[in-house]
Amino acid sequence: MNESRVKAKTHTYPVYIGENLRYQTDQYLPKSFSSIFIITDETVAAHYLQDVQKSLANETIFSCTIPAGEQSKNIDTFYHLHTKAIEYGLDRQSLIIALGGGVVGDVAGFVAATFMRGIDFIQMPTTILAHDSSVGGKVAINHAQGKNLIGNFYAPASVIYDVQTLHTLNDHELRSGYAELLKESLLADKELYHSLIITDLSFLTSDKLIEQLTRGIDIKAEIVEIDEHESGVRKYLNLGHTLGHALETILGYGSWTHGELVAIGLLFAIRVSEKTYAIQLPYEQLYTWLKDNDYPLQLPYIDPAEILAKMKKDKKTLNTTIQMVLLQDIARPALMEISDKKLLNYLYDFQIEMKQRSE
Amino acid sequence: MNESRVKAKTHTYPVYIGENLRYQTDQYLPKSFSSIFIITDETVAAHYLQDVQKSLANETIFSCTIPAGEQSKNIDTFYHLHTKAIEYGLDRQSLIIALGGGVVGDVAGFVAATFMRGIDFIQMPTTILAHDSSVGGKVAINHAQGKNLIGNFYAPASVIYDVQTLHTLNDHELRSGYAELLKESLLADKELYHSLIITDLSFLTSDKLIEQLTRGIDIKAEIVEIDEHESGVRKYLNLGHTLGHALETILGYGSWTHGELVAIGLLFAIRVSEKTYAIQLPYEQLYTWLKDNDYPLQLPYIDPAEILAKMKKDKKTLNTTIQMVLLQDIARPALMEISDKKLLNYLYDFQIEMKQRSE
Repeated sequence: MNESRVKAKTHTYPVYIGENLRYQTDQYLPKSFSSIFIITDETVAAHYLQDVQKSLANETIFSCTIPAGEQSKNIDTFYHLHTKAIEYGLDRQSLIIALGGGVVGDVAGFVAATFMRGIDFIQMPTTILAHDSSVGGKVAINHAQGKNLIGNFYAPASVIYDVQTLHTLNDHELRSGYAELLKESLLADKELYHSLIITDLSFLTSDKLIEQLTRGIDIKAEIVEIDEHESGVRKYLNLGHTLGHALETILGYGSWTHGELVAIGLLFAIRVSEKTYAIQLPYEQLYTWLKDNDYPLQLPYIDPAEILAKMKKDKKTLNTTIQMVLLQDIARPALMEISDKKLLNYLYDFQIEMKQRSE
Repeated sequence: MNESRVKAKTHTYPVYIGENLRYQTDQYLPKSFSSIFIITDETVAAHYLQDVQKSLANETIFSCTIPAGEQSKNIDTFYHLHTKAIEYGLDRQSLIIALGGGVVGDVAGFVAATFMRGIDFIQMPTTILAHDSSVGGKVAINHAQGKNLIGNFYAPASVIYDVQTLHTLNDHELRSGYAELLKESLLADKELYHSLIITDLSFLTSDKLIEQLTRGIDIKAEIVEIDEHESGVRKYLNLGHTLGHALETILGYGSWTHGELVAIGLLFAIRVSEKTYAIQLPYEQLYTWLKDNDYPLQLPYIDPAEILAKMKKDKKTLNTTIQMVLLQDIARPALMEISDKKLLNYLYDFQIEMKQRSE
């Protein structure tokens, strides 16, 4: 088992990464609690809720299962979970455990952040993608008019990451998580990048997962330690997300996962970086790896003006120029304003290139 | 004008207390903001919203008026204010101003704490009672099953306290605010106590208000600086509230204000202190002052068992003994567990005594 430590403004917390940790949850509690409220979703509950409940047999535990999927990050689920917390008699010495992926982590974390003005919570991520969201203390629900608009910065008491739970992920979720790992490696770690780019997603071992996830979490932790509230370098974590988020909004959720669209966004960011800095980056290598690992790289053609409009709406910066995270080299990120005109051209060229390649 | 400073965990903020500050709001902004969203209630809007808007004529301002009263501290108002903030295009560099009493401060503060994971907000209290809630960073809304159950600790960027706005308060609100001032003096400041106990509420001058409010805020600030998240000495601020809150729940809101019931709670806490420590405290003096200033001291008889049940429900400690804040002397508070049996007796005796006196 690996242990990382993340320094938040309020406290430092451990991230445990290993196999079968869910059978020993009690051993990773930072202190004793008056009661424990496990929040999970239907999919995860079917696989792992009982394991966690059994491992906490000596504690006073309650649990609540919410529907799986992004639509659970709404104000009604938030209020419903507060109602349950009150009915179960939670108090300030209680703990909330978020057992699941990013959605469960975000909503359960926000409930913990606001129940009686904040009680402890533990993230137990069950997806690869959630290695990213479980570290850094961003918790939120969506507003009907935009994602993650209502939330807090609220660091967990600890993160317990049982990589065994990742073996039940489907291929889409696997690819989604690895796109974020790739992003982290491109931002900060050539060695991790070289390890990832030779990884075959159809033959993942627990050892490899533990090693790569630990490194990904360390990178994320280093960045959020410097800039917890996202006024500076934390923005680098948006590498690949400028286009990725816009595509998510346009294409809707379902056919592509978050990370699959981020992967396309990474390709785009690399292409723009090459043009902006007149350098060569491993675009070909990344493209080939994504293709070999069955990432969906064929998109319908979308009017660049529509993409640009969504990019601006996403950042609520309708009147200003888009700031993209670019790479001057692997592990050398930079923020760069790209004029609308240039961006429209890049988007057009990129789509043509992607289309030609896939033919 | 007086200026106090409050040290929160995240930052130190100024509290400006003086006359006619609302006409110069722009001069008290800590920095420039991309836009300003003023949240107020119907009553306050009718008196003061225009003044504040005019003083911010050079800024991009928006405003929203919520219904006056405790019922506005609900999840629907909270979400509605988020919707408005999005529609008005607020971003992370925007400011929310809470112009009003405790209700407006609590709900607007919680919106600020959660909009895009937290933007700056300024408290502009318009009641005496709100001198207490505007300092200390507690923001919240109510859950249908209990007060202030959903919220954050989130300190304001500053507090701008225009005592001129206090002259439009009705007598109930005046008495309500002075009860909290009395509480603070009993906790920490004999001099303030002696000043308050000779104050005639029908002849309040702005100078006297500024002087006494400044001292009250300083006391509050000293306590919350030591214990922002209420794990220790901040509990002292509950002096008078153990009974006060229980009476609020039983009698409902309307006939008595929060502070008027806290005043009765203070008398009770003093009586229990005298019995517990076998000492004499200025019970008679306080009773006389409350009576002279027309505090409503006649309550209907309530079964002590019912009061005790509400006290336990209020603190969510159904199975444990009630902890009361007592006084070993003026400015010498202490926490003390009181057995159910003793408490029932004290409540019975206190009610009989109050009834006999009022006859």
